[in-house]
Amino acid sequence: MTPADADTSLLAPGWAGSPVSAATGDAAYLRALLEAETALTRAQAALGLAPAGAASAVADAADPDRFDLPSLAERARSGGNPVIPLVADLTRAAGEEYGPYVHRGATSQDILDTATMLVADRALDLVLADLARTERALAALAAAHRDTAMPGRTLTQHAVPTTFGLKAAGWRSLVLDARDRITAVRDCLPVQLGGAAGTLAAFGAYGAPDPAALPAAYARELGLSAPPLPWHTLRTPVADLAGCLAFTAGALGKLAVDVLTLARTEIGEVAEGTGGGSSAMPHKANPVRATLIAAAARRAPHLAATLYGSLAAEDERPAGAWHAEWEPLRDLLRLTGGAARDAADLTEHLRVLPEAMRAHLGLTHGLIVSERLSAELAPLLGRSRAKALLTELAARAYAEDRPLGELLAEVPELREADLTAAADPARYTGSAAELTDRALERR
Amino acid sequence: MTPADADTSLLAPGWAGSPVSAATGDAAYLRALLEAETALTRAQAALGLAPAGAASAVADAADPDRFDLPSLAERARSGGNPVIPLVADLTRAAGEEYGPYVHRGATSQDILDTATMLVADRALDLVLADLARTERALAALAAAHRDTAMPGRTLTQHAVPTTFGLKAAGWRSLVLDARDRITAVRDCLPVQLGGAAGTLAAFGAYGAPDPAALPAAYARELGLSAPPLPWHTLRTPVADLAGCLAFTAGALGKLAVDVLTLARTEIGEVAEGTGGGSSAMPHKANPVRATLIAAAARRAPHLAATLYGSLAAEDERPAGAWHAEWEPLRDLLRLTGGAARDAADLTEHLRVLPEAMRAHLGLTHGLIVSERLSAELAPLLGRSRAKALLTELAARAYAEDRPLGELLAEVPELREADLTAAADPARYTGSAAELTDRALERR
Amino acid sequence: MTPADADTSLLAPGWAGSPVSAATGDAAYLRALLEAETALTRAQAALGLAPAGAASAVADAADPDRFDLPSLAERARSGGNPVIPLVADLTRAAGEEYGPYVHRGATSQDILDTATMLVADRALDLVLADLARTERALAALAAAHRDTAMPGRTLTQHAVPTTFGLKAAGWRSLVLDARDRITAVRDCLPVQLGGAAGTLAAFGAYGAPDPAALPAAYARELGLSAPPLPWHTLRTPVADLAGCLAFTAGALGKLAVDVLTLARTEIGEVAEGTGGGSSAMPHKANPVRATLIAAAARRAPHLAATLYGSLAAEDERPAGAWHAEWEPLRDLLRLTGGAARDAADLTEHLRVLPEAMRAHLGLTHGLIVSERLSAELAPLLGRSRAKALLTELAARAYAEDRPLGELLAEVPELREADLTAAADPARYTGSAAELTDRALERR
Amino acid sequence: MTPADADTSLLAPGWAGSPVSAATGDAAYLRALLEAETALTRAQAALGLAPAGAASAVADAADPDRFDLPSLAERARSGGNPVIPLVADLTRAAGEEYGPYVHRGATSQDILDTATMLVADRALDLVLADLARTERALAALAAAHRDTAMPGRTLTQHAVPTTFGLKAAGWRSLVLDARDRITAVRDCLPVQLGGAAGTLAAFGAYGAPDPAALPAAYARELGLSAPPLPWHTLRTPVADLAGCLAFTAGALGKLAVDVLTLARTEIGEVAEGTGGGSSAMPHKANPVRATLIAAAARRAPHLAATLYGSLAAEDERPAGAWHAEWEPLRDLLRLTGGAARDAADLTEHLRVLPEAMRAHLGLTHGLIVSERLSAELAPLLGRSRAKALLTELAARAYAEDRPLGELLAEVPELREADLTAAADPARYTGSAAELTDRALERR
Repeated sequence: MTPADADTSLLAPGWAGSPVSAATGDAAYLRALLEAETALTRAQAALGLAPAGAASAVADAADPDRFDLPSLAERARSGGNPVIPLVADLTRAAGEEYGPYVHRGATSQDILDTATMLVADRALDLVLADLARTERALAALAAAHRDTAMPGRTLTQHAVPTTFGLKAAGWRSLVLDARDRITAVRDCLPVQLGGAAGTLAAFGAYGAPDPAALPAAYARELGLSAPPLPWHTLRTPVADLAGCLAFTAGALGKLAVDVLTLARTEIGEVAEGTGGGSSAMPHKANPVRATLIAAAARRAPHLAATLYGSLAAEDERPAGAWHAEWEPLRDLLRLTGGAARDAADLTEHLRVLPEAMRAHLGLTHGLIVSERLSAELAPLLGRSRAKALLTELAARAYAEDRPLGELLAEVPELREADLTAAADPARYTGSAAELTDRALERR
Repeated sequence: MTPADADTSLLAPGWAGSPVSAATGDAAYLRALLEAETALTRAQAALGLAPAGAASAVADAADPDRFDLPSLAERARSGGNPVIPLVADLTRAAGEEYGPYVHRGATSQDILDTATMLVADRALDLVLADLARTERALAALAAAHRDTAMPGRTLTQHAVPTTFGLKAAGWRSLVLDARDRITAVRDCLPVQLGGAAGTLAAFGAYGAPDPAALPAAYARELGLSAPPLPWHTLRTPVADLAGCLAFTAGALGKLAVDVLTLARTEIGEVAEGTGGGSSAMPHKANPVRATLIAAAARRAPHLAATLYGSLAAEDERPAGAWHAEWEPLRDLLRLTGGAARDAADLTEHLRVLPEAMRAHLGLTHGLIVSERLSAELAPLLGRSRAKALLTELAARAYAEDRPLGELLAEVPELREADLTAAADPARYTGSAAELTDRALERR
Repeated sequence: MTPADADTSLLAPGWAGSPVSAATGDAAYLRALLEAETALTRAQAALGLAPAGAASAVADAADPDRFDLPSLAERARSGGNPVIPLVADLTRAAGEEYGPYVHRGATSQDILDTATMLVADRALDLVLADLARTERALAALAAAHRDTAMPGRTLTQHAVPTTFGLKAAGWRSLVLDARDRITAVRDCLPVQLGGAAGTLAAFGAYGAPDPAALPAAYARELGLSAPPLPWHTLRTPVADLAGCLAFTAGALGKLAVDVLTLARTEIGEVAEGTGGGSSAMPHKANPVRATLIAAAARRAPHLAATLYGSLAAEDERPAGAWHAEWEPLRDLLRLTGGAARDAADLTEHLRVLPEAMRAHLGLTHGLIVSERLSAELAPLLGRSRAKALLTELAARAYAEDRPLGELLAEVPELREADLTAAADPARYTGSAAELTDRALERR
Repeated sequence: MTPADADTSLLAPGWAGSPVSAATGDAAYLRALLEAETALTRAQAALGLAPAGAASAVADAADPDRFDLPSLAERARSGGNPVIPLVADLTRAAGEEYGPYVHRGATSQDILDTATMLVADRALDLVLADLARTERALAALAAAHRDTAMPGRTLTQHAVPTTFGLKAAGWRSLVLDARDRITAVRDCLPVQLGGAAGTLAAFGAYGAPDPAALPAAYARELGLSAPPLPWHTLRTPVADLAGCLAFTAGALGKLAVDVLTLARTEIGEVAEGTGGGSSAMPHKANPVRATLIAAAARRAPHLAATLYGSLAAEDERPAGAWHAEWEPLRDLLRLTGGAARDAADLTEHLRVLPEAMRAHLGLTHGLIVSERLSAELAPLLGRSRAKALLTELAARAYAEDRPLGELLAEVPELREADLTAAADPARYTGSAAELTDRALERR
């Protein structure tokens, strides 16, 4: 390939320049592949299956700077995976004496799967760090706006009031759900080691007295888990990654679509701290962070579906299902990592405008509390009279552009009743504050 | 609607007539919706928010036989969900005195989400039962065929030998992974209760001293979990269902594609106990169970992706994201439930043909053990001479249609070496038996 | 199966009771299957391959009322498709003499694929009818509001003005694109006829002198196209259906998301003529039609993807890829058909509120025309002075809550210039009217 | 970003080094973006809206080598798209006098959409070239093997015979369908030009007497089509690309899954001319081309679904739906382009092994022609005696390992009948040859 084919994330503002981007680039994969090879020789040396010199020779040879990424990519084509040319180059670099110990007993998939788990492990740590930032920012917003009333909206219409604190607490609970799901998956990422057909047979042929002990030794070298079985076609680890990443992208997507709604020109209840500019209209402050998160949330489910689809992998190693995983898994790591970075930036700098929220509580002329008024008036007037009265006053409120509370105060039968509180949207936030407090107790 | 629109699973042989099918039909949803309404009144009565008579009146009124499903479906159209007409009918049936206590303080989504969790809870139990059958059958197959050698296949080609026991143990490990993921999700399925915008405000308006306690009381009535927050637009429970179901369908899909391969006319290493007939060719015994499981595995990831996509649900209740969940979630329960039933039937009656497996070990004229012979010959002949010799003999093995072992025995330099064992594919199964034993220890 | 499994579209308000629903129910499929069988015997009789009596005996036997749908569904399980039990029942019903001519030479897939094309053909006609209604309603809206200015919104923010006419014309152009794509596909829907492996061999065995002529005869009987080859595993017709249906659902989805936005409480520039009610809040008028269309648009791409995935169908008839098509294709027809019905209802009754649109043009204090003012002021003041002035006045417009035009009028350097028109948002709609006129010329 | 983030297609052996890869890399996008900007200024100059000097100044400035891709990518983050920094750089490069004419009146999406269409146009041409190679190779295979009998397989089992010629002709027909769908889409790819909200208003503000004429002028400059309306949120062109590309990937996927099946060690009826090696087993010749095509076919439907999902784009320009298109569309072009290249290589070098095909016709002991024998024996023996006899002989054929034809010859009642031809699988290929001839007439 020529450099013309290289991607520099020009089309990916969602993750360009993010830590996860660097941790998942081809250079990062190359490093992980070399670590996987090095650890394999080291694990064999530790068990006496290779001379000590082999381990250090391979480690020395496995210097990423000595490898030519575009050449590896090009040569990956004939065998269908990049490990084949990598092993050829690494074997040559390790020299005549120790070259034979490179990749000994392993299959390409052992190395690529293991490297992928290393990359995923590191990328997930970065995602978790940005989720932690996001969670902290949301906890602060929820606490600060515990009692900030705003319209609750359902099917796009004002329903009854809620609080911005409860909204932020809800976003946070999704972020914590994402954190828990990612952490559980990250803590179990396994090495892959099975040899040509997952029986570890070659290690025995090369003299290992107990080849079945090798995966655990390999896992120790790399700080990953030892799998119960080689998983060349038992793709639980990849499916679990798909699930936790699609969940995370979607959870952040909820935050994003809410911000996009609340930031609309007509609503203006929140604004991104540093909105993006526009090439045509200098006055615009676009909610760019939310836009890019929303874009990631649109793509992630499809990538996860590709990975779930690869569970149906035939034989001991499949012809296509495995190959279809590589790029979608990386894309999913990147999209989610980019979205987590954007979510952290967004929430840390979100501007909340309580006055706009309060003003909007009046947009329905008080009908936003009609649910409460029904409940209050029924014992006073009887259920059917109460209902008829509210229906009539609702129509008048819109026609005369007056608040429902004012009209109620004029009803003779209600002269005695003090409905001021009941007609005040800001006082009809139910258990929002208590739910917020309770949600914030979760750590 | 007319009965013409009713679906009787004519196009769904994968789940027609299955227990999960009955547990997820419209009639099952109707029952669950009525249980959700009944429990809501009962929970309010238990907290003194409704007269005791209301609870029993609603329970009496909530007799599924009194409700007309097609009419409910038709009337669901105007408000966009079936709870609205259901509440109207139930209120009428509860009578003038207690009708007002029906659905009091709740929103449609409280009821439909809760009913969906009840349906999912029951459906998952059925799936788990069929996974348990499948697991037992696979454990028996793995134990019985612990030492049955067969070709290991990678990228469709014979690689090195494996055992059928290891293969069955691998299938079983996926089934156990599915069981664990489903169990974890099932154990946390929550009720939904938040009222119009998730603040529980209406319950307070109707007099509840501590509305935030109501969800837990509601959960107790129904045997579900109490959620930390109303989750109208915090869709973790639905996403978790999507994940465990897509995983399960895919895990069974792995079993299916393997059976489809091994049952091919040319391979014939396994056969379904009761293969399906053909309308045109009476002699055919099609692997129908595996076919239907494979079809489910093709569909499930897309349905899960739809559900993951609905995480990005705007506002307090969304316009579309929620509505897009209903049918895909049910379809996913059904497809997975049908696939689990088929997997149980398939594995309990699978015919394994070890003679065919053994015969196929010879198809490559012994080259299936070339990996081992390389390892064995290198110390005897030197690495490069060993390689050259094997290359030459491999060509001759095909040309002369003779086994590699036979040709090796004729090589003068190897007269002293006893390569019989090394050249026997059935003895090159590596750690397959040990891995199988270890995998079977998992319960 | 028991009636408990039957679906009555309780979870499908989007298509419950729609014409497409009735045209795609199990009863409709049964009729189509019987038509496919009848036409096959008739085509053979027409070519002298079966006695004339056979054609009428089969036609008589193929009375849908004589067939038991739940029983067919249940018995479909063993062979994996519903044609096998259907043929058994039909053969029995045709009697001893003519029974042997039922399904003669055909395979199950010939019948099910052909029936599916019949169902699709009829369903697409219904979709086209609702698209035609939608298109007419939108043409009227576009013409009526050719000059109704409103804010153009990009990334959720007011950008520059547009017109509601142009918006409606855009929606209409998508509907016409959908119509064109559906029409092209509908006009080519082929019968399926190939026999067991697509060679038409059995027809020859039963005496057909020119079996390759049979598909065309069959197509004539049914009013479908004759395919160039049997397409058991050449799934162009199904993929083409997937494409045009996903397009249509998405095209209507654009209309829906716009209506959902414009109908928000804070925006209120349009309203559904008959908004849906709410179980909790009697005053709400939810945009239910748009909600259900939006839900369909969320689901359709995943269903289409399932169908595109089934293009990779192995062998002469596949084990799973075909079976995975049946329900998704029907769901896609129904979702799209339901969405088309809702789109017609929505557009025919849409309430447009030009006053709200006009009022919103002022929300940015005139900055919505800053693009134009930059262009106008540059020649008067020089580009950099113009820019600096606008930046300053924009800040003041917000701070002082005054329109930009008013502030401009006070600038001494501009005393001579008449910027009234340039500062009027309603006069900065560019070529919107001309584009609308041009778009409406398309028929 | 650092080079560490750059992708060099290490994980993409399916398209690494392909012509489409080079045509869709970031460098190619940069060139197309610059062409789009240059053409815009040129079109304005041609209509007298900009000085002639501006056109040449912008053309000179738009030298791709002067632009820093990683820097553009990084700076794209704040505004959410790469056009914003590109315009800044290009304006500076064009100099003080002509800089103001850069991008004048346009919005970022005008440029990025137009550039995307340029990239797609060129990529599709490359795909078409490889489809043409594939089609020619398949035509030759179909003609050469017009009469090469082989087992027809359905649900993985031998059904009745077919020919390899018909199989190749079927593959070719899908390739031609793909060609036709791609060609139709390519011939209509439009420029994008609408300005900030699709009204072309800014062009009028800058003095264009007839801004609605500008898109056609722009299209002429670039050799693309003029769209009926600006399509910022009317995404027909992108959806059409999604459809034709998903179709093509799936069509090639059919070829791939067939080759993967036929190349299995046990089947060996075809082999890739240059199979891929294995890192562990030197004797293996993996069907790598088919594997990579199959992987592309697994991914493409999900990418297309993402694009169909973006049809539901709100407002005049959307917050997320558009951004979610960029990478999936490029990935789809690359995957399809890579698959087309692999398909061409695969089909041009496919080794067909008619002896293996013929040998396999005997695997079912002649039962592969039981359909025909039923038809032949019924008139001789009566339908029920014929059926009973065939059932009995079929069982004996397997038990005694003898061909059915041989057993039939021993049946006394059939002594007179010459069933040699009827029992010969190679003579029961029906209309395969005629269908092949007919299919090859299509150009």
